[in-house]
Amino acid sequence: MHIDESTVTKAVHTIQMLAVDAVEKANSGHPGAPMGLASIAFEIFTRHLRYDPQDPNWPDRDRFVLSAGHASMLLYGLLHLAGYDLSLDELKRFRQLGSRTPGHPEVHMTPGVEVTTGPLGQGISTAVGMAAALKMMEARFGAKTGVATARVFGIASDGDLMEGVSAEASSLAGHLGLSNLVFFYDDNHITIDGKTDLAFSEDVGKRYEAYGWFVQRIDGHDHAQIRAALDAAVAEPARPSLIVARTTIAYGSPGKAGSSKAHGEPLGAKEVEATKKAIGWPTEPTFLIPDDVRAIFATRADEGRKAHDAWKQAFRALEQSDPAAASLYQGLIRREVPENLFDELVKAAPRKDAATRQSAGIVEQRAAALVPSLVGGSADLNPSTKTYIEGSPALQKGDFSGRNVHFGVREHAMGAFVNGLALAGGFIPFGSTFLVFADYMRPAIRMAALSELHSVFVFTHDSIFLGEDGPTHQPIETLWSLRLIPNVDVVRPADSLECAAAWAHALLRRSGPTVLALTRQKVPELPRPEGFDPKVMLRGGYVVADSATNPPAVVVIATGSEVGLAMEAKKILDAEGDRVRVVSMPCLEQFQRQDQAYREEVLPPGTPRVVIEAGSTLPWRALVGERGLVIGRDNFGASAPDKDLAKAFGFVADVVAGKIRAMRRS
Amino acid sequence: MHIDESTVTKAVHTIQMLAVDAVEKANSGHPGAPMGLASIAFEIFTRHLRYDPQDPNWPDRDRFVLSAGHASMLLYGLLHLAGYDLSLDELKRFRQLGSRTPGHPEVHMTPGVEVTTGPLGQGISTAVGMAAALKMMEARFGAKTGVATARVFGIASDGDLMEGVSAEASSLAGHLGLSNLVFFYDDNHITIDGKTDLAFSEDVGKRYEAYGWFVQRIDGHDHAQIRAALDAAVAEPARPSLIVARTTIAYGSPGKAGSSKAHGEPLGAKEVEATKKAIGWPTEPTFLIPDDVRAIFATRADEGRKAHDAWKQAFRALEQSDPAAASLYQGLIRREVPENLFDELVKAAPRKDAATRQSAGIVEQRAAALVPSLVGGSADLNPSTKTYIEGSPALQKGDFSGRNVHFGVREHAMGAFVNGLALAGGFIPFGSTFLVFADYMRPAIRMAALSELHSVFVFTHDSIFLGEDGPTHQPIETLWSLRLIPNVDVVRPADSLECAAAWAHALLRRSGPTVLALTRQKVPELPRPEGFDPKVMLRGGYVVADSATNPPAVVVIATGSEVGLAMEAKKILDAEGDRVRVVSMPCLEQFQRQDQAYREEVLPPGTPRVVIEAGSTLPWRALVGERGLVIGRDNFGASAPDKDLAKAFGFVADVVAGKIRAMRRS
Repeated sequence: MHIDESTVTKAVHTIQMLAVDAVEKANSGHPGAPMGLASIAFEIFTRHLRYDPQDPNWPDRDRFVLSAGHASMLLYGLLHLAGYDLSLDELKRFRQLGSRTPGHPEVHMTPGVEVTTGPLGQGISTAVGMAAALKMMEARFGAKTGVATARVFGIASDGDLMEGVSAEASSLAGHLGLSNLVFFYDDNHITIDGKTDLAFSEDVGKRYEAYGWFVQRIDGHDHAQIRAALDAAVAEPARPSLIVARTTIAYGSPGKAGSSKAHGEPLGAKEVEATKKAIGWPTEPTFLIPDDVRAIFATRADEGRKAHDAWKQAFRALEQSDPAAASLYQGLIRREVPENLFDELVKAAPRKDAATRQSAGIVEQRAAALVPSLVGGSADLNPSTKTYIEGSPALQKGDFSGRNVHFGVREHAMGAFVNGLALAGGFIPFGSTFLVFADYMRPAIRMAALSELHSVFVFTHDSIFLGEDGPTHQPIETLWSLRLIPNVDVVRPADSLECAAAWAHALLRRSGPTVLALTRQKVPELPRPEGFDPKVMLRGGYVVADSATNPPAVVVIATGSEVGLAMEAKKILDAEGDRVRVVSMPCLEQFQRQDQAYREEVLPPGTPRVVIEAGSTLPWRALVGERGLVIGRDNFGASAPDKDLAKAFGFVADVVAGKIRAMRRS
Repeated sequence: MHIDESTVTKAVHTIQMLAVDAVEKANSGHPGAPMGLASIAFEIFTRHLRYDPQDPNWPDRDRFVLSAGHASMLLYGLLHLAGYDLSLDELKRFRQLGSRTPGHPEVHMTPGVEVTTGPLGQGISTAVGMAAALKMMEARFGAKTGVATARVFGIASDGDLMEGVSAEASSLAGHLGLSNLVFFYDDNHITIDGKTDLAFSEDVGKRYEAYGWFVQRIDGHDHAQIRAALDAAVAEPARPSLIVARTTIAYGSPGKAGSSKAHGEPLGAKEVEATKKAIGWPTEPTFLIPDDVRAIFATRADEGRKAHDAWKQAFRALEQSDPAAASLYQGLIRREVPENLFDELVKAAPRKDAATRQSAGIVEQRAAALVPSLVGGSADLNPSTKTYIEGSPALQKGDFSGRNVHFGVREHAMGAFVNGLALAGGFIPFGSTFLVFADYMRPAIRMAALSELHSVFVFTHDSIFLGEDGPTHQPIETLWSLRLIPNVDVVRPADSLECAAAWAHALLRRSGPTVLALTRQKVPELPRPEGFDPKVMLRGGYVVADSATNPPAVVVIATGSEVGLAMEAKKILDAEGDRVRVVSMPCLEQFQRQDQAYREEVLPPGTPRVVIEAGSTLPWRALVGERGLVIGRDNFGASAPDKDLAKAFGFVADVVAGKIRAMRRS
């Protein structure tokens, strides 16, 4: 589509002034970045980005990722112009309660927003995962059929590229040769504290070249340069692209252009007036959109609809020529799992004493066979986390047919990459490492929770009982610090049968991340009562061994490796005539979702309670009440064989039984 | 010191075989890295590292940082040889309960260990902070006097350099031109998953050049090359050094050299025998140290003692020539604070309605005037976190006289850097950002806690009430997820007077990190009862407004901005004849350290309790019991002005009063 240059200028001014007006009306927000980036964003949207505003979920659309989430008004303005279901009234309610234009873009909130951004570095790192997902779809369907051809465009700020997560993800993107990824770096020389060179004087372009990216350097306000760089980036066959674009923050503002004052606060009425005057824009009405600017985007929407129609036709052709492939495609996009998934996983559980990382690994292999969407990898811990999907290669430059990803020692990028796989559609992704290193990727886990993503995080070596590696590697507070993140489910299975339930939970829970916490050490396969229905495990907590009489005298609740310990303590106490019930609580969040009747059936009100978990005790007090007992560990661990640690820290049956006995007597 | 080459070889073999024997005896650990790195480590220790094993705390010693903490036996072997108080018996108890040779090096555990390492990336990033600290000492004392000349040497692995935290820290090190920092990169092409190039194909050397480092490339088993590179690095006047050393993992092992199998498990008896045979080493006795190898290190220890003596003399000369400087030096090293610190900070508190970030900033200025050790910075949020120390410049290349650091948008590196400042001695460092971004630096905070460091983390924008920036920026679970880390104190002051106590707490608590959580929004300065003794605030929790009668009918416990809300609710309830006590709980950890009598005086047993905090509620239930009430927020926030959020989420006095009323009646 050809647009004459004066209309281009007008369109850029429209995007800039929409941002200025919205920030001014909200009296809050970031006007500088949208003003500096309007030219670039306009060229992305009108020259290359393939989108259909009528169907924001078209699986083969190109994605646009605004990593610099604080520039949200740039995106909202464009989405409105592009024809997405985002009215001008919503723009006028920028940053207000209940609007679809929150301070930072939120993916589940606003049509056309592809990634929740704001915490710096997450956007570009998630985009790397999205680009990989699209390459994986292309490898499965694209080359012959044209049904999987989508690309990812984005804009990153100084802050994005200072963050370590983007460094990890960019290194991985270069390694994988994600040629469908095109990012602009908004090199505006300004951060909140002032000039960027207060803290940032590296050669970013050279760094990205070292990662294996195709790097170009342009003036970010020169449309000819922007177009040429975009065209070259799109044509680049083997490398991701970084276009280093020298821009001026608050471009067009006579008083604030190039100043950190334009970063995070409204320009102010006077400066708005001066700016509009300087660029020849009417001061009234605000939120002005000239008709010829609307026309550009209407034409663009037409083109998008046509592209979408062509894609539909290609897909129908695929249905004819290769129904199995078409069906697989749809199954992937729907993240289908078979109806009998849980039963099949239960059958796959090895039902013997083993580390739960081992059992979960076996269950995962069965899950991978049943669920083509399941893909993932580990942060250089495959031999330890046991998550590598057998019979499938790992992704590598030029070959994206595999289901495994070698993330390297890059936990944070792994988290964002997994989220990108989940966002792009087609995949139920997992990433695995040791539980204590969940801290390294916590911002990405939180983003998965906030964005309601179907991300799975497999964390092994889930307690002090990993042993000799010592306190740097031993989680204490980690389980609870994950449980406390809203919309995260933590599942800590006790044996192989519970591993089946754990993976079923992770695969069936579609609207938020699931964390699996697995042992390094061997645990006993628990006996189950006669007539035990495995489905009860999916309720998050259940009676694994009851007292001879009902109600029990005491309920011992435990998770993971400590359920076996609870069973041993029960034996000791039962022999003394006590009436102990053991409740396994692999997923507290899920248990709390059960109806009151069930919860009270498992945990009878008034019956004394004990919790055993080898980690922080304080939050568990919410479950046991004032008279209850929590057996755990609140201080750091130590380097020693696990059996020695168990003895030293009191995680042995007779000590536990003694503590329960003492509680019952007090 | 000259050592003939055959003795060098013998010494290298000694270091290698100590590691092999210790890992074999423990049947656990990492033999490959110590074998591959012995030559490099030997040259560092014998050619340049200035240390006195008799005084591991000599402030002007050079530091050695083993970022690749899994290679701990390399370090333990060297420390034993060097003459530190680490016996051969301790080496034989590698990875056993109660030994001083844990799986990964722990700074508070073993003399000569400078940094706790293991979680990858932390070592090199902390070393950057240490190098900056030493430059800061040099800027204050060194140039004229020779009392501050120390340098930092270290070794990093592939994994260290894949981690984002090291990318952030290395960019900052290049920016600051830390020429006293010399790191080897153990480029052994092997990770746990196999060949490094499964996931890591970037040009590391080029990347470090882009950061502004002096990069050399050598064969890591060629001593002549190692020495030449070390000498050039030490002589480099303006840049930190990275020496990319091509090495072979498990160098010398006929069966496992160059294999990922040698990374994380013992070689096995057979391979140990084969290795010893191959290098011409006796198979028995194990833990063999030839006399001429001992002699090398004895000579080296002598040299170290002489260097230390020369330093003592230089320091005595300084005491003569400039007693004020000498006294400042010692004050810094002791991290001295004046005895009347708390009173002075109380005087500095502005005592008016203001955001606690504002009040704490004013208090901090007074603290900075009183405590020369206090230094720090923000992750590009100075205008928001209000922590910049006035009247002092920021660190910059070539000028380390300042007390402020511009960390850039690099929270994780900030955390590690702050820890490095604390470890190097001389400083009480702080780093500041928004509370929600604590997640970005959580591994460093945990490391500070485990290492018992005097690090201070200032986190502002501490609740949903930061408003328009929305849920990506609004902490919910963050306060509790920090409180749960062992040995972290979280202080959330309610008004300016409590900000004085908060900073006093941070400055006086020497053996673990303190987190300050501060509001973005204005809060009321609380009235205090007649005869109020401010010192009571240092107890972590205290009665800020009592009921007319004792005991109260209900105790409302609140933190930070919610204390003001509790006071308003009290007004409503008191007017109805209720008897409400309000307890401010700025630091729960400190309150829990108080004696039982005080705790029960503040929170009378049996009196119903309510907690108000705008964040996760579940852990607070431990304090309120089954009949109690917790008013908080467990779901994500929203983008809107803070007053609108308060209304929408029930943080307004009449709603709170209503909930308390309902609880009392139920």
